[in-house]
Amino acid sequence: MPSYRAPTADVSFLLNDVFGIEKYGNLPGFSDLSPDMLEAILSEGAKLCEEMLQPLNRVGDLEGCKRHDDGRVTTPKGFKEAYDAYTGGGWLGLSADPEYGGQGLPYTMGAIINEFSSSANMAFSMYPGLTMGAIAALHTHANSEIKATYLPKMIEGSWSGTMNLTEPHCGTDLGLIKTKAAPQGDGSYKISGTKIFISAGEQDLTENIIHLVLARIEGAPEGVKGISLFVVPKFLPKPDGSIGARNAVSCGSIEHKMGIHGNSTCVMNYDGATGWLVGAENKGLNAMFVMMNEARLGVAIQGLAQSEAAYQNAVAYAKDRIQGRALTGTKEPTKAADPIIVHPDVRRTLLSIRAFNEAARALVLWTALKSDVAHRSDDDKAKQDADDLLGLMTPVLKGVLTDCGFDNAVKAQQMFGGHGYIEEWGMSQFVRDARIAMIYEGANGIQALDLVGRKLPRDGGRAVMAFFNEVQSFIKANEADESLKPLLGALGKSLGHLQQATMWFMQNAMANPDNAGAGSSDYMHLFGLVALGYMWGLQAKVAQAKLAEGANGDAERLETKLVLAKFYAERMLPETGAQLARISSGSTTIMGLPADRF
Amino acid sequence: MPSYRAPTADVSFLLNDVFGIEKYGNLPGFSDLSPDMLEAILSEGAKLCEEMLQPLNRVGDLEGCKRHDDGRVTTPKGFKEAYDAYTGGGWLGLSADPEYGGQGLPYTMGAIINEFSSSANMAFSMYPGLTMGAIAALHTHANSEIKATYLPKMIEGSWSGTMNLTEPHCGTDLGLIKTKAAPQGDGSYKISGTKIFISAGEQDLTENIIHLVLARIEGAPEGVKGISLFVVPKFLPKPDGSIGARNAVSCGSIEHKMGIHGNSTCVMNYDGATGWLVGAENKGLNAMFVMMNEARLGVAIQGLAQSEAAYQNAVAYAKDRIQGRALTGTKEPTKAADPIIVHPDVRRTLLSIRAFNEAARALVLWTALKSDVAHRSDDDKAKQDADDLLGLMTPVLKGVLTDCGFDNAVKAQQMFGGHGYIEEWGMSQFVRDARIAMIYEGANGIQALDLVGRKLPRDGGRAVMAFFNEVQSFIKANEADESLKPLLGALGKSLGHLQQATMWFMQNAMANPDNAGAGSSDYMHLFGLVALGYMWGLQAKVAQAKLAEGANGDAERLETKLVLAKFYAERMLPETGAQLARISSGSTTIMGLPADRF
Repeated sequence: MPSYRAPTADVSFLLNDVFGIEKYGNLPGFSDLSPDMLEAILSEGAKLCEEMLQPLNRVGDLEGCKRHDDGRVTTPKGFKEAYDAYTGGGWLGLSADPEYGGQGLPYTMGAIINEFSSSANMAFSMYPGLTMGAIAALHTHANSEIKATYLPKMIEGSWSGTMNLTEPHCGTDLGLIKTKAAPQGDGSYKISGTKIFISAGEQDLTENIIHLVLARIEGAPEGVKGISLFVVPKFLPKPDGSIGARNAVSCGSIEHKMGIHGNSTCVMNYDGATGWLVGAENKGLNAMFVMMNEARLGVAIQGLAQSEAAYQNAVAYAKDRIQGRALTGTKEPTKAADPIIVHPDVRRTLLSIRAFNEAARALVLWTALKSDVAHRSDDDKAKQDADDLLGLMTPVLKGVLTDCGFDNAVKAQQMFGGHGYIEEWGMSQFVRDARIAMIYEGANGIQALDLVGRKLPRDGGRAVMAFFNEVQSFIKANEADESLKPLLGALGKSLGHLQQATMWFMQNAMANPDNAGAGSSDYMHLFGLVALGYMWGLQAKVAQAKLAEGANGDAERLETKLVLAKFYAERMLPETGAQLARISSGSTTIMGLPADRF
Repeated sequence: MPSYRAPTADVSFLLNDVFGIEKYGNLPGFSDLSPDMLEAILSEGAKLCEEMLQPLNRVGDLEGCKRHDDGRVTTPKGFKEAYDAYTGGGWLGLSADPEYGGQGLPYTMGAIINEFSSSANMAFSMYPGLTMGAIAALHTHANSEIKATYLPKMIEGSWSGTMNLTEPHCGTDLGLIKTKAAPQGDGSYKISGTKIFISAGEQDLTENIIHLVLARIEGAPEGVKGISLFVVPKFLPKPDGSIGARNAVSCGSIEHKMGIHGNSTCVMNYDGATGWLVGAENKGLNAMFVMMNEARLGVAIQGLAQSEAAYQNAVAYAKDRIQGRALTGTKEPTKAADPIIVHPDVRRTLLSIRAFNEAARALVLWTALKSDVAHRSDDDKAKQDADDLLGLMTPVLKGVLTDCGFDNAVKAQQMFGGHGYIEEWGMSQFVRDARIAMIYEGANGIQALDLVGRKLPRDGGRAVMAFFNEVQSFIKANEADESLKPLLGALGKSLGHLQQATMWFMQNAMANPDNAGAGSSDYMHLFGLVALGYMWGLQAKVAQAKLAEGANGDAERLETKLVLAKFYAERMLPETGAQLARISSGSTTIMGLPADRF
């Protein structure tokens, strides 16, 4: 049976030593976060995830969700108790607005707990996760009446939220949405249509389910310009806040999926269900984008989370499993064989996962802090700078962390040999669960297009130039430091590749956008390697400095950081040259083959 | 529901145009293979796989195998009928020795049918596949009495074969085997012990199951030098060839696996079961290696097979699914959206799978022909040369084709968006089934070690030098051909990387074998990229020549080959530079971290 320990010490190192969270004390929410409180949140969150959520992970996989003939859906045994503990502890509203009952703590803290809970039980953590996304969308776009009605219940967790975009014939291309909204003259609409792949669309955890639904108001313009967002509760709220009549929305079936069996993925049928407009008519995509962007960061975290959980179990197995002898001669003569962690290929594999994990966690926190600044600062310039980088990094995080998270789960599974293929060991579940993160909230190919097609050129490239400058300045400021030289030299070279690739797009994509499309996935990963390399630069610098000061007690952790940074430079950054070569090969060959010859 | 069409035209192109199968007419089995007969075998084999095996693929996945309380195992519905059709058609004995009822056709033909049947239904094709491996081991090592008793029944398919190596505490490290063999004085032994992960260990397809079992004779030396191979039938054969008493071997349980549900993976208990020695005492590993090497090629083919099947379905989906518009403007104005195959990133993904598939198929056939020469030629020099390259290429094929086969199944699944994650579409099954091929018959890390630790230095590097010379000579012989220049230029550069990496090992692995271990996986994949690139060179040259001759009717296929070769050079070969850089970084960082800090 797999196990999990939340990486609280690494998070503390990142927040306190690398990112200096105390510098953010002027922002709402941060000022309430004393060092003691921070540690208490980390350790209490870790405890909940390790002791309550993790033991239910395999239960959820084995049992899955069950839809009954009347449309009810039962979640796996134990999920309801865990959900009550999760919401009862205030975890759902951790960073939500205090005006509606939230704790108002930084989004960054929510992102950390999201990692822990996704590592412990990804299928479970999607239930509160979807609600958090819906809270964000309503908080930003709904009118005060809707907010007052729904937000307190959702933040306390007694009502949940869902996100209804996809229809059988359209996912990526939301302009094709057919679900209809007919105005009733009293401010409400009747919603009719079918939505698919609705995570947590129906369940038995909450007394009400609040669906956010994209639909087309009768007579609206065609395409994405005619799409509006509606709030459609399962039970209509009564004026006193209690639940009233059942609305005409129901779960038609649930999907049989490769993984995340513990989360119900529903076909939702809207048969003239009553709903209310959120935000302006025909501006539904804008409103939904708030939820989608938050969800994309959440999904990126899922990729990291599965990689971390898979890593921990692979390390435990590699230390325990004895098989063969070290290439350089017997290491454990009293045993029949050496533990497989003596083998360079096993270590290389494990280090490649960990060098990703600890940089990805840093990049998540770096980006989450930008999100907090963008949403909470009263300094317009700081807000804009943070928002620029948040927008730029969102597709990179979503695409890279989920692609690598899945690959890492596969690598960790490989360490188990044949046992990795047997479901009882739990490694298969990490792989199967991690797989969906590459697909939902915009398949990773779409993330790559969002990056090269939208985020790169936006505001004349302001965001990407700011990022390049930041990395370049860091390299320059530290180039005299001999011990950082190998890492920063490699990072500088990779940054050069990224800049050349960016230039190549500027020169070649205008004339032919297919040149951008053909290189988009490589570019996203090239960007990710540089961003993660920058995170290693920041961490190595701090580790170095603290070791020089004589970091009592913490030397092992800090020395390990330096080993991982070196590994990253030696084994992971070399890929950027290949990516640049592929990008520069353009689209002629790719577009030349007629479709019928594929 | 997924579909499958066997790539018979591509196989014909490779056998006839690229490898000139008529040149092998002097070898036994090849002389019987007229062009008409070859085509008939391909089309009949295709028909069986497409019409009988493929429709059972999802049935097998859904239903799985069931063990009953009495130890019997039931295979999925329809498997028995399919098995009877398969064996009844003589497919199991296609390349087996005519002396025992086989058809004596080239092993190469068996490899082709193996690809078709694994694409159609991997879990099913393992039943005859294991039997073929057991036939090879018995044919090479067993005495004439054992051969006469078992081979005819196994070749006709009424008895099946299995391979019993792994025990709960050992897989890779067979020196730890505990299963015991006690001589009975009558030439037989009593075998006692537990074997795990035994594919097809128990089933309801055949009247008898012949287990090949590694065990330790009482008093044998420790480690791999004390392991012998035994034949242990489920039912003891009577002198007349009919089945007699039940032997003391039984299936204790079956595993719950990530995939290949249609194949029973058994824990086999030997409780003093009667067995007979195959080959010499304590030379069991040698005998088993015949089976393992054949099995490794078979597993490599499974990797290709899943990649091919997944590709075909992804292409069909990409042509059918409409979503969004082409980056360069609407392509299908009469439809609500363009098919997703207009998108460069979709095409890039599909071409990367196909450029692998068609080169991998070529490399399988190239290697299978070496196997035929090594086993059937009477020219000692030719035999040795072929055997050298067969030995060298076996770990490369096993490691690279299964790693890439899995990755490609994942990529193909990605083309389906959310639908790829839903089991009904069948893409998840390709991924889950393909995953095991990276693990069994020696996990891919072991293949990489076999390559760098054994195959590279063997006979003073004779095999690897021969391979480098062959590729180098091909490049040199064709360097004047302008149209091949882009491909051969890139291939020459990658071959240079491979040669540098080989040199680096020679200089650094002697002093410290960890330097070889740390680079072994990258080296295996670097080797694979060059070998597959060479296959593109061979194919492009032929395609070019035939187009110049005015290939009537076949122009589309030949032009497509040239596009794929170009794609391979532009998008896949650039990776070799990164691999060389990683290899050259050595083992210091990797080995430096103490095990308890992982």
